[in-house]
Amino acid sequence: MSFIATPQTMHFPDALPLQSGASLRDYHLAYETYGTLNADRSNAVLVCHALNASHHVAGVYAGQDKSEGWWDNMIGPGKPVDTDRFFVIGVNNLGSCFGSTGPMHNHPDTGEVYGADFPVVTVEDWVDAQARLLDRLGIQQLAAVLGGSLGGMQALSWTLQYPERMRHAVVVASAPNLTAENIAFNEVARRAIVTDPDFHGGHFYRHGVIPKRGLRIARMIGHITYLSDDVMNEKFGRSLRAPTLPASRGSLPPEGAGPARGGPAPDLRDYLYSTQDIEFQIESYLRYQGDKFSDYFDANTYLLITRALDYFDPARTHGGNLTRALARATAKFLLVSFTTDWRFSPQRSREIVKALLDNRRSVSYAEIDAPHGHDAFLLDDARYMGVMRSYFDSIAKEVQP
Amino acid sequence: MSFIATPQTMHFPDALPLQSGASLRDYHLAYETYGTLNADRSNAVLVCHALNASHHVAGVYAGQDKSEGWWDNMIGPGKPVDTDRFFVIGVNNLGSCFGSTGPMHNHPDTGEVYGADFPVVTVEDWVDAQARLLDRLGIQQLAAVLGGSLGGMQALSWTLQYPERMRHAVVVASAPNLTAENIAFNEVARRAIVTDPDFHGGHFYRHGVIPKRGLRIARMIGHITYLSDDVMNEKFGRSLRAPTLPASRGSLPPEGAGPARGGPAPDLRDYLYSTQDIEFQIESYLRYQGDKFSDYFDANTYLLITRALDYFDPARTHGGNLTRALARATAKFLLVSFTTDWRFSPQRSREIVKALLDNRRSVSYAEIDAPHGHDAFLLDDARYMGVMRSYFDSIAKEVQP
Repeated sequence: MSFIATPQTMHFPDALPLQSGASLRDYHLAYETYGTLNADRSNAVLVCHALNASHHVAGVYAGQDKSEGWWDNMIGPGKPVDTDRFFVIGVNNLGSCFGSTGPMHNHPDTGEVYGADFPVVTVEDWVDAQARLLDRLGIQQLAAVLGGSLGGMQALSWTLQYPERMRHAVVVASAPNLTAENIAFNEVARRAIVTDPDFHGGHFYRHGVIPKRGLRIARMIGHITYLSDDVMNEKFGRSLRAPTLPASRGSLPPEGAGPARGGPAPDLRDYLYSTQDIEFQIESYLRYQGDKFSDYFDANTYLLITRALDYFDPARTHGGNLTRALARATAKFLLVSFTTDWRFSPQRSREIVKALLDNRRSVSYAEIDAPHGHDAFLLDDARYMGVMRSYFDSIAKEVQP
Repeated sequence: MSFIATPQTMHFPDALPLQSGASLRDYHLAYETYGTLNADRSNAVLVCHALNASHHVAGVYAGQDKSEGWWDNMIGPGKPVDTDRFFVIGVNNLGSCFGSTGPMHNHPDTGEVYGADFPVVTVEDWVDAQARLLDRLGIQQLAAVLGGSLGGMQALSWTLQYPERMRHAVVVASAPNLTAENIAFNEVARRAIVTDPDFHGGHFYRHGVIPKRGLRIARMIGHITYLSDDVMNEKFGRSLRAPTLPASRGSLPPEGAGPARGGPAPDLRDYLYSTQDIEFQIESYLRYQGDKFSDYFDANTYLLITRALDYFDPARTHGGNLTRALARATAKFLLVSFTTDWRFSPQRSREIVKALLDNRRSVSYAEIDAPHGHDAFLLDDARYMGVMRSYFDSIAKEVQP
């Protein structure tokens, strides 16, 4: 049983200028904090989230046993990021659909739902909004900013936007920008959403519909890129779904139901010879993930967050030179990558490490031999957890109890 | 200027029994032949096609200069597969949308268009249909069966279904079955098509519509998997599309138009900060490919062909043991793979090579260091072309002139 987490909300009346030239005012940020801020306010750790996550990083909500935060294995009392020593802050990003102001909220000028009119937000904008939240919480300097994947991009951007406001950056399974292939996958997912007739140019709320078809496809594509080829073969391989004979085709069990009693083992049954029925376990898994996602995720948020990923590229304003781009960073760094991550491969983390070393920065780097692909950053792995624990132990030693 | 190719059609009144238990009768196969069958009918080479191809393998159609066949760089007079020495046969598979009987043709019983009622066809079914065509052409034994990707699966299946009717199998950029990840990509593409409201359960012809949205998404996903990450970075990288300043957003040139005169170089212009406009070159490329494909490819054919890919697995009826499965093959083999092909990686070709060697078969294997990913099998590469030429030269020496 984990500790009890309590979501909070902070209102920001003043306009936040955005990279695009637009601005947002009268917005809210949802956040949670765990642990206790120490007397000299030096033990705060900010945790940044990735695509499908929120401010609910650790703990459970009162009366909801199964509501663990998305990084509950990493953060909590006695865990690698130990909330008995650190004051941990999770914040939901602008444009999200999990509590902070986003496309399904009302524009303060018109009172109408934003929809597709919600401004494009970038990693830099999120970092600016997070810095304002810290101002309000009375935290001048963070012990560390920590994030995985898109969260790691935010941690990296923190070191460039507010170098004096942090001592450590922990960047896990991330990259200095997206490759063409990364952008390509995002674009296909976005096209699936935007071309769904229920999208209505992003103003589907007014029509009382949700572009679920597009969201399902987007999530299925995402899931493929989160897993390694190896782990997919190990988990699903070419296994057929729930045993059933072609003769009993009319009585297929509902999706998610257990194997029909008395049928042959899935791998021994004959093919159904169908292009539309579920034949393989991997198909059943992907459809289930797509359905679940389309029930709770907002289509405009999906567009915004994937675009923030596409746009992040700190080297862009330095002629593509990452070393020059990272010269401003003064934080100490831990970078972690996973060998089978083909979304943000170890090579991408090594580019950051090299640029930091070129600038003679303090850098620790761990390349974890894990089979799970990009998802590994959310999973338990003894070496990974050990590296994180040891790095945060060393940060704790710098901090007054 | 290539030689003139002439498409032909053969009618088959008798029912072809299919793997699924269904059958097809009164069907047509579209095919082309190049070169001359020698006196003892021993110089025939059958070429099997992959997803997006047809019987039009080489040459051009009269009066259509730009109509080169899909493997025109490989096959023709003086080319690696030399039509001055071989009688080459290209045949369009059943279920295709390029000439042979497929879902857009009429069911002989009802006179209604097949649509979703076209039976599921497998690699084995295609090979059976090809064998019947050879019967009608009076060819008892092929000098070789040649194919890339899904075409390579047909060549491999030929060695198991008709071992006595062929002397060589040339299997390029192929695999002994699909991995879970391969199936996953096929499934997402199929879901995009099937959930397109214009699909109408596969009977869209009756409604006078085409599920173009789904076809576009399917093709975009396909394209990502055909290219290597490296070649995508080299061709597109993070380059922005046609230079235009945010101020002139209303006057974006139409897609495919050249750069606006006087604008900054694409990489120097500011971002558009849009989730729906085309920002990056890779997006423009993928949308173009998707649009083009949706204009000519049939949605039901896409489902059928990807399902044939999923189902192919000769080891399945041998407890997953590929060595036992390939024991029937008596042909001599050439296998070719490409280092950057992550759809059908060299590892998959090596599995076939190992299983053949376990059976003490004659196998040549070339792993070509090419940057182009899966698409490499269609492109010119001196080492690849050299390997193919030399292998077919050796076959030609066995054949009477």
